[in-house]
Amino acid sequence: MLKIEILTTGDEVLEGLITDTNSAHIAREVAPFGVVVRRVTAVGDTLEELRDALLEISARADVCVMTGGLGPTSDDLTLDALALAAGVPLAVDEGLWEEIQRIYLGRGRVPPSNRAQARVPRGGVALRSAVGTAPGMRLTLNGCEVFAYPGVPEELYWHCEQTLLPYLAARLNIALHRRTLRVCLLGESRLYDLLRPLSLPPEVRVGYQALHVEVRLKLSSPSRDALERAEALIADALNREAPGHLISHHDRSLPQALVALLTARDLTAGCAESCTGGAVSAALAGVPGASAALRGGVVAYSNDVKRALLGVRDETLAAHGAVSEACALEMARGARAALGVDWALAVTGVAGPGGGTPEKPVGTVWFAWAGPHGAEAERRALKGDRERIQRVAAHEALFGLWRRLSAGGAPREVTDA
Amino acid sequence: MLKIEILTTGDEVLEGLITDTNSAHIAREVAPFGVVVRRVTAVGDTLEELRDALLEISARADVCVMTGGLGPTSDDLTLDALALAAGVPLAVDEGLWEEIQRIYLGRGRVPPSNRAQARVPRGGVALRSAVGTAPGMRLTLNGCEVFAYPGVPEELYWHCEQTLLPYLAARLNIALHRRTLRVCLLGESRLYDLLRPLSLPPEVRVGYQALHVEVRLKLSSPSRDALERAEALIADALNREAPGHLISHHDRSLPQALVALLTARDLTAGCAESCTGGAVSAALAGVPGASAALRGGVVAYSNDVKRALLGVRDETLAAHGAVSEACALEMARGARAALGVDWALAVTGVAGPGGGTPEKPVGTVWFAWAGPHGAEAERRALKGDRERIQRVAAHEALFGLWRRLSAGGAPREVTDA
Repeated sequence: MLKIEILTTGDEVLEGLITDTNSAHIAREVAPFGVVVRRVTAVGDTLEELRDALLEISARADVCVMTGGLGPTSDDLTLDALALAAGVPLAVDEGLWEEIQRIYLGRGRVPPSNRAQARVPRGGVALRSAVGTAPGMRLTLNGCEVFAYPGVPEELYWHCEQTLLPYLAARLNIALHRRTLRVCLLGESRLYDLLRPLSLPPEVRVGYQALHVEVRLKLSSPSRDALERAEALIADALNREAPGHLISHHDRSLPQALVALLTARDLTAGCAESCTGGAVSAALAGVPGASAALRGGVVAYSNDVKRALLGVRDETLAAHGAVSEACALEMARGARAALGVDWALAVTGVAGPGGGTPEKPVGTVWFAWAGPHGAEAERRALKGDRERIQRVAAHEALFGLWRRLSAGGAPREVTDA
Repeated sequence: MLKIEILTTGDEVLEGLITDTNSAHIAREVAPFGVVVRRVTAVGDTLEELRDALLEISARADVCVMTGGLGPTSDDLTLDALALAAGVPLAVDEGLWEEIQRIYLGRGRVPPSNRAQARVPRGGVALRSAVGTAPGMRLTLNGCEVFAYPGVPEELYWHCEQTLLPYLAARLNIALHRRTLRVCLLGESRLYDLLRPLSLPPEVRVGYQALHVEVRLKLSSPSRDALERAEALIADALNREAPGHLISHHDRSLPQALVALLTARDLTAGCAESCTGGAVSAALAGVPGASAALRGGVVAYSNDVKRALLGVRDETLAAHGAVSEACALEMARGARAALGVDWALAVTGVAGPGGGTPEKPVGTVWFAWAGPHGAEAERRALKGDRERIQRVAAHEALFGLWRRLSAGGAPREVTDA
């Protein structure tokens, strides 16, 4: 397996003024070649630190992608560090300097400091760019191929596409097969315990990535066959032990999968929300093309709005309170009628931090789903702070509809169309 | 000068699935102590790589802050790596295990795999957290103080504040005064250009942190007096050049500040949302105590719902379309009446990726605010993808109400009560 490392330079990164997004970009770009970045190192704009880092990395890695430090100012030290690490002289390439001046011409006078960007360490190859004025640099250091690119994201992206990926394509002949499953409302540790007993093919790598209330389950393998066997084993186990929680075989989120399912079945949906305050509707509306399924919603935060827009009865509120099965059912039925939709979701609960009682502590949430064949309600006791309760409650509301719709038939084809 | 390094663990970072924002956070937090992070290293979830990185860093640095790898799964190897690097055994601390189970109790059955989180390398000190279930760990390795924290940002932030900064303050004998201002809907570079000409006291350090459409402006100084002078200069400049954009002197977000302002003035609010799909209501509902001001909202995603629940007229939709000044005004007035509130906010626009036209390209958004003295509308041309347009549009809607309410009197006392 090719060993690739990233070296990022720049005081701004170490001072926290800039978040290094370049490394993630590079990692994502090389991933399809089956290459995983082994290490990312960020150092400041100090010649010795850069040289040391280059020597360390070149002793470990086959390829080093270096970003930043190619500008014209005195704290741009990448070329100096490359020459120092390789023990070679650094001299201006007059042809390159002419090219840089040509690029600049349209922008006016070329600042003399830019001449520093035309320096090349002996043995290095300047990488001309169609974006920006700073050329990249390629140099073999202790048998490690070093690609030095500007830190400006657009320039880096260009170089990745035009010089790094072609190099990898030429050097490698490995295709890694990948699949990302999405599991929702099942804790990462519960999921892990569920999958641990499975006898997956040993060449399949399984990675977990928690995204709030969903988990990305990333499978990768050099063998397509092994990958598909692992995928089937995992899907079987999940469908048996936690039916419905496997949302997608193609990295779709619950809102995305639900909008796709509703759209495929030509169904419309709407929401009646109290404690989630609009988060359920907003999650659906966040999906491109949501308008094919989402008609709208009512945020009935106060009891007045529950009565006026959803038709919740005074007697219901008086006898059971707003956080009750009866109120959730009336909210769902009321929203179905008011919004004119096939399915309505309702949520009413105590998000906290205030408002809890011994009978209905913070985290008590009632859900209801009203559809063509009637309405059903469920209660959950959610834990956490207000933000978490609202987030989980919104997901539970969507998940309840997902389960009811996907139980009728295999949603997989629809989900991953 | 104290040498501090950061070690990040996690295949997700090396695969580019997650952008490491934790390192920038840590760097910003330690900066006020005059401490610059010397190096950031990210390695994957491999025991040997973690051990090697720990040994290298502990040989160079005085303090190492390690993030990630403290979860319950088999690729969480931080505790193992610490024990391996230190050459000490790793054993479950039964008292710690009981505490973890207590935290979990409310959430139901404790998965057995979580027992791994209760392990402590000999000589290590578990760092209990009020956020999440994973404790942090502190261990002296080759004279270097290693602080291992969970990679979940909220948990990491808590640990930074509660265990790292107190350690630095004690070790460096520095007491810092800090103040965090919030500025919204003003680009980071615009803000920088605005503040650059100011003659701030030299001992005050200013840090910027962009949070989507808000910026945290972090001031710190060993002198309380200098801090307050700097704060006044910055507030004056902002109130003069960008009135209203300074939302809080105490790190309150726009939704938080708006709920506080509405509550203090005994005003109620509600929303009529099309393209934001509930995000405006949800932002307000996310604030603890929102029920004192937020009555509810209507998510009028389809034109039918705009007509039925908000009373938008057929003629308006036919003549001007849903994304228009007239429609926004009718939505706001309709919501004010339907929800029975003092102030109603309306948003209708083209979030994309589809739905744009030459006259109303993607990003065209109309806003309206209806209050006791009438209604006003404004138009914005927002840039970016669907998610960004929805997020900025939601913020613009809230900001419009904030400006209208805060113009009447100084909101500062109310904001930061």
